[in-house]
Amino acid sequence: MGPHETVEVTGHLMDSGILSRVLDDIRDFGGDYVIEQLDVGHDAHDPSSARITVEAADDSSLQRLLMRLQTRGVNQVSDGDAVLATAELDGVLPEGFYATTNLETRVQLDGEWHDVENPEMDCGLVVDAPSGAARVRTVPLTDVRAGMRIVVGATGVRVSVPQQDSEAAPLAFGDGEVVRDRPQAVLVRQVADGMRQARTDGKRLLWVAGPGVVHAGSVPAMVALVRAGWVDVLFAGNALATYDIEAALYGRRRNPDESAEGLEHGHEHEVRAVNTIRRAGSIEAAVAQGVLTGGLMHALATCGRRFVLVGSVRDEGPLPDVHTDVVEGQRAMRAEIGDVGYCLMMATQLYSVATGNILPATVPVVCVDINPAVVTRLTYHGTNPGRGIVSDVGLFLEQLALELVADYRRT
Amino acid sequence: MGPHETVEVTGHLMDSGILSRVLDDIRDFGGDYVIEQLDVGHDAHDPSSARITVEAADDSSLQRLLMRLQTRGVNQVSDGDAVLATAELDGVLPEGFYATTNLETRVQLDGEWHDVENPEMDCGLVVDAPSGAARVRTVPLTDVRAGMRIVVGATGVRVSVPQQDSEAAPLAFGDGEVVRDRPQAVLVRQVADGMRQARTDGKRLLWVAGPGVVHAGSVPAMVALVRAGWVDVLFAGNALATYDIEAALYGRRRNPDESAEGLEHGHEHEVRAVNTIRRAGSIEAAVAQGVLTGGLMHALATCGRRFVLVGSVRDEGPLPDVHTDVVEGQRAMRAEIGDVGYCLMMATQLYSVATGNILPATVPVVCVDINPAVVTRLTYHGTNPGRGIVSDVGLFLEQLALELVADYRRT
Amino acid sequence: MGPHETVEVTGHLMDSGILSRVLDDIRDFGGDYVIEQLDVGHDAHDPSSARITVEAADDSSLQRLLMRLQTRGVNQVSDGDAVLATAELDGVLPEGFYATTNLETRVQLDGEWHDVENPEMDCGLVVDAPSGAARVRTVPLTDVRAGMRIVVGATGVRVSVPQQDSEAAPLAFGDGEVVRDRPQAVLVRQVADGMRQARTDGKRLLWVAGPGVVHAGSVPAMVALVRAGWVDVLFAGNALATYDIEAALYGRRRNPDESAEGLEHGHEHEVRAVNTIRRAGSIEAAVAQGVLTGGLMHALATCGRRFVLVGSVRDEGPLPDVHTDVVEGQRAMRAEIGDVGYCLMMATQLYSVATGNILPATVPVVCVDINPAVVTRLTYHGTNPGRGIVSDVGLFLEQLALELVADYRRT
Amino acid sequence: MGPHETVEVTGHLMDSGILSRVLDDIRDFGGDYVIEQLDVGHDAHDPSSARITVEAADDSSLQRLLMRLQTRGVNQVSDGDAVLATAELDGVLPEGFYATTNLETRVQLDGEWHDVENPEMDCGLVVDAPSGAARVRTVPLTDVRAGMRIVVGATGVRVSVPQQDSEAAPLAFGDGEVVRDRPQAVLVRQVADGMRQARTDGKRLLWVAGPGVVHAGSVPAMVALVRAGWVDVLFAGNALATYDIEAALYGRRRNPDESAEGLEHGHEHEVRAVNTIRRAGSIEAAVAQGVLTGGLMHALATCGRRFVLVGSVRDEGPLPDVHTDVVEGQRAMRAEIGDVGYCLMMATQLYSVATGNILPATVPVVCVDINPAVVTRLTYHGTNPGRGIVSDVGLFLEQLALELVADYRRT
Repeated sequence: MGPHETVEVTGHLMDSGILSRVLDDIRDFGGDYVIEQLDVGHDAHDPSSARITVEAADDSSLQRLLMRLQTRGVNQVSDGDAVLATAELDGVLPEGFYATTNLETRVQLDGEWHDVENPEMDCGLVVDAPSGAARVRTVPLTDVRAGMRIVVGATGVRVSVPQQDSEAAPLAFGDGEVVRDRPQAVLVRQVADGMRQARTDGKRLLWVAGPGVVHAGSVPAMVALVRAGWVDVLFAGNALATYDIEAALYGRRRNPDESAEGLEHGHEHEVRAVNTIRRAGSIEAAVAQGVLTGGLMHALATCGRRFVLVGSVRDEGPLPDVHTDVVEGQRAMRAEIGDVGYCLMMATQLYSVATGNILPATVPVVCVDINPAVVTRLTYHGTNPGRGIVSDVGLFLEQLALELVADYRRT
Repeated sequence: MGPHETVEVTGHLMDSGILSRVLDDIRDFGGDYVIEQLDVGHDAHDPSSARITVEAADDSSLQRLLMRLQTRGVNQVSDGDAVLATAELDGVLPEGFYATTNLETRVQLDGEWHDVENPEMDCGLVVDAPSGAARVRTVPLTDVRAGMRIVVGATGVRVSVPQQDSEAAPLAFGDGEVVRDRPQAVLVRQVADGMRQARTDGKRLLWVAGPGVVHAGSVPAMVALVRAGWVDVLFAGNALATYDIEAALYGRRRNPDESAEGLEHGHEHEVRAVNTIRRAGSIEAAVAQGVLTGGLMHALATCGRRFVLVGSVRDEGPLPDVHTDVVEGQRAMRAEIGDVGYCLMMATQLYSVATGNILPATVPVVCVDINPAVVTRLTYHGTNPGRGIVSDVGLFLEQLALELVADYRRT
Repeated sequence: MGPHETVEVTGHLMDSGILSRVLDDIRDFGGDYVIEQLDVGHDAHDPSSARITVEAADDSSLQRLLMRLQTRGVNQVSDGDAVLATAELDGVLPEGFYATTNLETRVQLDGEWHDVENPEMDCGLVVDAPSGAARVRTVPLTDVRAGMRIVVGATGVRVSVPQQDSEAAPLAFGDGEVVRDRPQAVLVRQVADGMRQARTDGKRLLWVAGPGVVHAGSVPAMVALVRAGWVDVLFAGNALATYDIEAALYGRRRNPDESAEGLEHGHEHEVRAVNTIRRAGSIEAAVAQGVLTGGLMHALATCGRRFVLVGSVRDEGPLPDVHTDVVEGQRAMRAEIGDVGYCLMMATQLYSVATGNILPATVPVVCVDINPAVVTRLTYHGTNPGRGIVSDVGLFLEQLALELVADYRRT
Repeated sequence: MGPHETVEVTGHLMDSGILSRVLDDIRDFGGDYVIEQLDVGHDAHDPSSARITVEAADDSSLQRLLMRLQTRGVNQVSDGDAVLATAELDGVLPEGFYATTNLETRVQLDGEWHDVENPEMDCGLVVDAPSGAARVRTVPLTDVRAGMRIVVGATGVRVSVPQQDSEAAPLAFGDGEVVRDRPQAVLVRQVADGMRQARTDGKRLLWVAGPGVVHAGSVPAMVALVRAGWVDVLFAGNALATYDIEAALYGRRRNPDESAEGLEHGHEHEVRAVNTIRRAGSIEAAVAQGVLTGGLMHALATCGRRFVLVGSVRDEGPLPDVHTDVVEGQRAMRAEIGDVGYCLMMATQLYSVATGNILPATVPVVCVDINPAVVTRLTYHGTNPGRGIVSDVGLFLEQLALELVADYRRT
């Protein structure tokens, strides 16, 4: 028998399908397994538990398989302290580093368990003071510094998977119960309720938006939501901000993606709008100077809301507020997610994936896009209690504003 | 020089792009042309006129080219009487038959012009009494009978193209003017206005709907619209009616198209629902017997609205009301379109194309689908003043019901 | 405790995910369960078995839940003889009828098990001679006749689910093992191998094709495959045959779906082509008369291959060979599937779903379409060992012809 | 009458549709026009010419309208010298700056015409030595420096539109002539011919590729093309390079976008691959150290081909070779396009749009993607003689390698 380890898992193993995914993982890594023990609750409401010995070809594969299994809430039975290694180069993790999930994670050091402070997927785990008041936090590759103490292997790491309830299923796919009445209206109302709950809990509301929000004519709905306090921070790219500002300066233009003839040379307004803001120095300065007097970015600036704009290779300009370095941009985004309690992703795959990469699994996410492939991709990315809604972002935002803003469309 | 003919066209030739399409047509048929005369209005509001001699390789090609040009409103200068030939076989038009458009068409017989009674595309033109009080009407292939007098060639036929105004452009693609404010809400309101106008004009409202209307949870919105008098006739297939009835009998089920795992063997409810209606004898009988007590088909039956259900090869059952012969189904649809003044096509390519095939060009059409390819296909099919809306049918119908039904969602 | 029944299932319960789907089904029907016994094989290669008592609110729900569970291979422990009822009306099954799957099914009568002769989903089961040499076969709703003896409820019916192997997973989604080398070429080769195997087994090759096959320019590839003996029977609609014939008579035309400006009035060639074949009397007659001299339909006719064309509501014409009654069309299709050993579905959702509805679960199916939604829908429809390939049908057929036809592209 | 200017245009005005687009532009800018003179060639092969006076509300609008018209090849009749203004701030163009197209452009200074050295769209025009041996070149916003002399307004600037031939139409949409035979094979062959021609002309071949190239299993085809000399430079993002390297190190993984269950936590391999290359220092170093021994990036490195990797906000890592600053990345891309003679864009909207932004209009572009919306977007972006092919990138590259690499699939 090759290198092996015994793991255990508890919960609604049968009806959640976790067990079959665990066995899939084992096969994916070329491993093998023996089910040592399986206690099945007798009726539908009893939890089950399993104890499984997994085996892999070599120790490195075994460690990586154990890390994968943790994403299912399957942890080692006999875990001692985490093993640490020292990063030898800036920006490089040690061989065999523990690759994080965005789930709640604990690390055992000197026999004590420590919560990971900021769960984020695909990072390393750095231990700041290996003895005494040790702190454990995630570190992305770019922020690794030589000398950091990094967790290697899966030993001494435990991950908690949130109880999957039926709510976690993407709404557009049905939710297993009979819904007779106006599901689309119900969907919008559920999103509004989620936002109200986050607000009640003292959490911030994060929006991620693509230029489609402008093309769909949703700027008035977004402005109303900003003014009514339903947007705390916006993540976007140069395109959304530029189209919004261009529309504020020159009037709304056609959506280049949908036009039969496409864009041809229609960028001219866009570049001129960017140049105008560059002359002012920043969006905030343009608002202060009276150059920019309307639109979403204006509303954010005048209401004191935060926004993080991160560049992309196709940007024209870009606007002076844009982080042209994407790693800096990621850092700026991370700085804003600390107390986020609800996240709405509107019509952008690029920025939504980027946000999903850094968001803890505990933040509810709703993703709206007219392209089913984007919704599927985003909904299953990570383990957030996410809901994907295949829908027109324009009608969705219209209904959401009607739901949340008392006097919307009545002024 | 080969066979040739001189044609003329008047209107906003430059800015409508008609002239370049005409020249495209000529090339498509391997023809050639000489522009004999071109009068261009000096300023933007003056009409232009052109006189063009077109040439083709042989007379048959020339005649077919002339028919194609008529779809652009380009007619022959020197037209004498239409040429007639006798159909020799049931269901077969004579060689060289004039293939119709769905535009307003006139035919010259004995020096007098006669309106075609029921414009429909891809039909023949049958002259009912070739002398005296002649009547000219379209006849589909299947209804041709031996002995009918049929127009052959393009001589003596004139077609009128409606003045293209900016309204005719598909809404989703922008309309050339600056729209600043809530275009999605505006779109829904414009559709509602079109329906009100048709109602004011004493016209009927035709709906074409696919099963997506049930899956989107729009049955309550549709029922409200039926009860408030905004649906005169519905064209659909077995699937829409079956899913609606199944939901009324057993509760709404998941949309099989969107489910991650798909349908597997989930047809069972559907077949049972169909069997139940077959036992009752018809949808109306099932309503009368108290078997069917809710849903869209129930609302249509209890409000005395018309519906035409036509079968397709994938039907389970089908319901007893379904025309299983598609040619009979087309005839039943034709019998309902006489005084239609507005047509809404919701989430079905098959039935929408079928309806577009028989609808005169004068009926405004709005097509709503979440798949842009379907909208593009349907919007450009024929020359109806059609508007394609790429949108979620669920949110669209919700907003339309809010717009048209006074107490919707307040009861 | 309400009405209940004990069921059992054996196989790779853990890693196939069957158990969690079974529990999903129970919840869907509002039922409850107790796991009486669960034997888990100790290592990855041992089968497991489970014995579960399921409970439902009433007997009717219980029977329907038991039918659903059978689609997972979960059968009742204590089954006596099947219960029969007599159909009282033509075209109507008795209340509580057993709704079939397309899996291998056996029915117990007088203590003896009888195979269902022609598994097809969503049918009833008719027992032809209830005693002695009883025969059991599926009967679609439309073919039910008063007096038939029909199975009601799930008692006395057993279904066998084929062992799911990794081959059954849709290829485009990966297959669980590491594939390093040219997967697209490998995919085409695997399809070719499946066709060769079916041929070796003395089975027929069924194709289902939409008009996209003509638009993609694949007629030469199809003709080569027909001539080389790789097409035994074709299911299609009027559109495929008409476009193919139109191209043979007038040259290939643009694909209306992809054209920026769409179809406008371009049906004219199509109607003329249909009229020409109607005059000849049939496709075969047109070939015999020398009217039709090329294309796919010509190849089928000259090589003596079978085709079944079934109408749809959007048909222009249609061709004289088309079954305009869809129920007749379904019967004609059923008559051709008896010894089919491989089925290729190319670029048509409508006819592919129709074929999937009547095909036994044992026939391998490959579905090729450029629209991922169509592939997903078709792949998960039924339990055939189906493979969905999201791909360009033109390039796929080109490569398949290169693979199967020795001198393709070399002549 | 408001501010106005007389412009002229010559060419195939009627059948190219240019005239109607020009009038559309005038309307878009709220302008008006008078057609002063229109000479129409009498037959199909004669060029036409038009002289039009255009009017706008104010001079600023007029100048911008004139710039737009230049993109159609419509230039001012009475142009004097270009007007220059001095940039006052780094990164900001003067008010009223001339916004460039990517067409061949000339600027008149002191009565002499100067070619713009590096046509690129949405830039300013900087005049390097305003007298004597003046040079004019494009400058993107980010590279503007205070003190630069910049062209303002449209006076003194002339743009040449390449003669639109039928080749310029996107292939997938048909090309106006009757194509009977294997269009998909023909398409691939035409691309191969275009590449051979560019090679013959001593030009470089530019590829732009997304991660779909790896997911489609096309790495072997790409490697063969690199080794045979058909790839001079590759533009891509971190994802393509990472997936390629990950596959080389750990075997190919599933495409997360297509997986039914999606990615979940499957990034782990990816991060580990990136970390490995970061430790080596660069892709080239990893090849030199024997760490990276296969795949596309390995082939480029060992064959001495160029690649430019530019970051995006969703990057994990990224690889050490990636330009994390997108403006730096754009500069690196610009440095590589000087002598490009053919550009292939494979399965990436982001990097293809970015490349289209900087490519001169004279470079032929072919864009392959399975999503029609991406192809349409890219094909109509700019005025390159571009061809959009809606196709499976895997099968396309397989056939292209068969076409261009003598011994492909035979080794």
